[in-house]
Amino acid sequence: MINIAVLSRDHEYYTKRIQSFIDQEFEDQVCIISACEDPLQIEHENIDVLLGNPNLCAQIVSRCTKLQWLQSTWAGNAPLVNQANKRFIITGLKDVFGQQMCEYLFAYMLYFYRNIGHFIEQQHEHIWRIPEYQSIAGQTLGIMGLGNIGQAVAKQAKALNMRVVSLNLQSRPEIADTCYVLDEINEFAAQCDVIFCLLPDTQQTQGICDERFFNSLKSNCIFINAGRGSVLANDADIINCLQQGRMRAAVLDVFKQEPLPKAHPFWQVDNLLITYHTAAISNHNSILGVFTNNLSRFMQGQPLQYAISMDKGY
Amino acid sequence: MINIAVLSRDHEYYTKRIQSFIDQEFEDQVCIISACEDPLQIEHENIDVLLGNPNLCAQIVSRCTKLQWLQSTWAGNAPLVNQANKRFIITGLKDVFGQQMCEYLFAYMLYFYRNIGHFIEQQHEHIWRIPEYQSIAGQTLGIMGLGNIGQAVAKQAKALNMRVVSLNLQSRPEIADTCYVLDEINEFAAQCDVIFCLLPDTQQTQGICDERFFNSLKSNCIFINAGRGSVLANDADIINCLQQGRMRAAVLDVFKQEPLPKAHPFWQVDNLLITYHTAAISNHNSILGVFTNNLSRFMQGQPLQYAISMDKGY
Repeated sequence: MINIAVLSRDHEYYTKRIQSFIDQEFEDQVCIISACEDPLQIEHENIDVLLGNPNLCAQIVSRCTKLQWLQSTWAGNAPLVNQANKRFIITGLKDVFGQQMCEYLFAYMLYFYRNIGHFIEQQHEHIWRIPEYQSIAGQTLGIMGLGNIGQAVAKQAKALNMRVVSLNLQSRPEIADTCYVLDEINEFAAQCDVIFCLLPDTQQTQGICDERFFNSLKSNCIFINAGRGSVLANDADIINCLQQGRMRAAVLDVFKQEPLPKAHPFWQVDNLLITYHTAAISNHNSILGVFTNNLSRFMQGQPLQYAISMDKGY
Repeated sequence: MINIAVLSRDHEYYTKRIQSFIDQEFEDQVCIISACEDPLQIEHENIDVLLGNPNLCAQIVSRCTKLQWLQSTWAGNAPLVNQANKRFIITGLKDVFGQQMCEYLFAYMLYFYRNIGHFIEQQHEHIWRIPEYQSIAGQTLGIMGLGNIGQAVAKQAKALNMRVVSLNLQSRPEIADTCYVLDEINEFAAQCDVIFCLLPDTQQTQGICDERFFNSLKSNCIFINAGRGSVLANDADIINCLQQGRMRAAVLDVFKQEPLPKAHPFWQVDNLLITYHTAAISNHNSILGVFTNNLSRFMQGQPLQYAISMDKGY
């Protein structure tokens, strides 16, 4: 018998749906032994398979001595990967965020390129006077972290006639027009009209957007961070860069501390928009799709999809 | 000798570029005989070929007795098509607006779907509270006038997983998931989460967005008009519909009278955005590309590209 536990705010919803999947596919082979939101209350000793929020799971996995596989409900899994206990497989979520990230990127990029804020202000004057605006055609979009999500975004950007350059740790993905690796980050930065950061939180990515990076930007550059807040070396660098007019705008979805504290200076910087970690949210259906697919693979002894490398951290 | 005239605010720029094209390709066969912005000053008698703004050209074509071909610098050519004199060919511009219309549509549609205005307001409170927002995936985009421009837009919308339905005068273009013809306009309207109107100004399209049309809309519907202002039967219909909460928002790029008069009620309707006929502007380069290509065809006796049907009006 394989014992499943669910550790998530949404454990009731997940449990109901998983039970119905088990009843159809794996009756008498699999059961749900525990489901709650509180890491202190979960029955951890006999868990073989754990589905859950990685922040909550990180608090119990060292005590789950029988754990074989953990399915995370998030795309970013730094809290888990940093755990010492690596006897089990962690699987993440992929192929479910590309659509939302495309919508997020194009919404904010086009908001600035079509100058919508200024058009709305102009309307208040009841005068037919056309604000400046610009096409994204021919503009260079730099994607930091051109993985599964980034490639979906790159494909759409190219369909709209943008040039796409990438910054990756080592690889040089074919989809980009020009590829840079981490050592070349400042050359990369100097090319871009728009930068979309999708990097995960790893030792190699922490603090890579530093003062020199921001000094390298073109003065029309729009920097959009939907990866992790830890890429910023110091929050002051981006504030200075914006306030001194050395870049055009920033849209920040992620922060070192979330929720962003009320006293943080980011709240009131001109041309800095805060989007509350909403760029792409996991939805229950896609999580369950990935989990039940992997559960079938697990029961049949097949390799699991979207396994996370403990060494790389993504 | 073929005599060309240019009637446009930008005649100096066009003349210089066309002359250089003639020097290379048609020396001693073609010459520019007149170029200005004022219809009263142009030397109209001996014009064989006219490049110009259709509003200005409409004032002189009846006197251009030798005119064989008129290349318009706009996409909409109602002022010319309504002229009695139909001895000459009119060619329009196509394949040059699709990119800009895509950017315009996605900018404003995603502005509302991602609820950017509300996110920006929320930031003023310095409180991490997430406004509602929604994905465009699975939403129904209705395109009124699925021609050359609309098909470029439909392709992008489908790549972002929207359902596309079309309303055309007669045809049922293959690219749409469901097609409606003009008689079915209210059934069409009732399907759509977003409507993008690209219809030209013709007898059949005038006033087709009437009270019944607006009464058919879903209450979440966003109506975006980048075709011609004449599709609205009465400006009051859309104002009432918005003010009574029977539709979500409107973005109007075109109006019966442009510039929109200062006293017009549109200026101050909530959730009605005015974009000053900027959705897609002709750019000099693409106009010259179409004109010089057609000039080569004209000189070689080949059919011209983008000829406008006098009967259909587009």
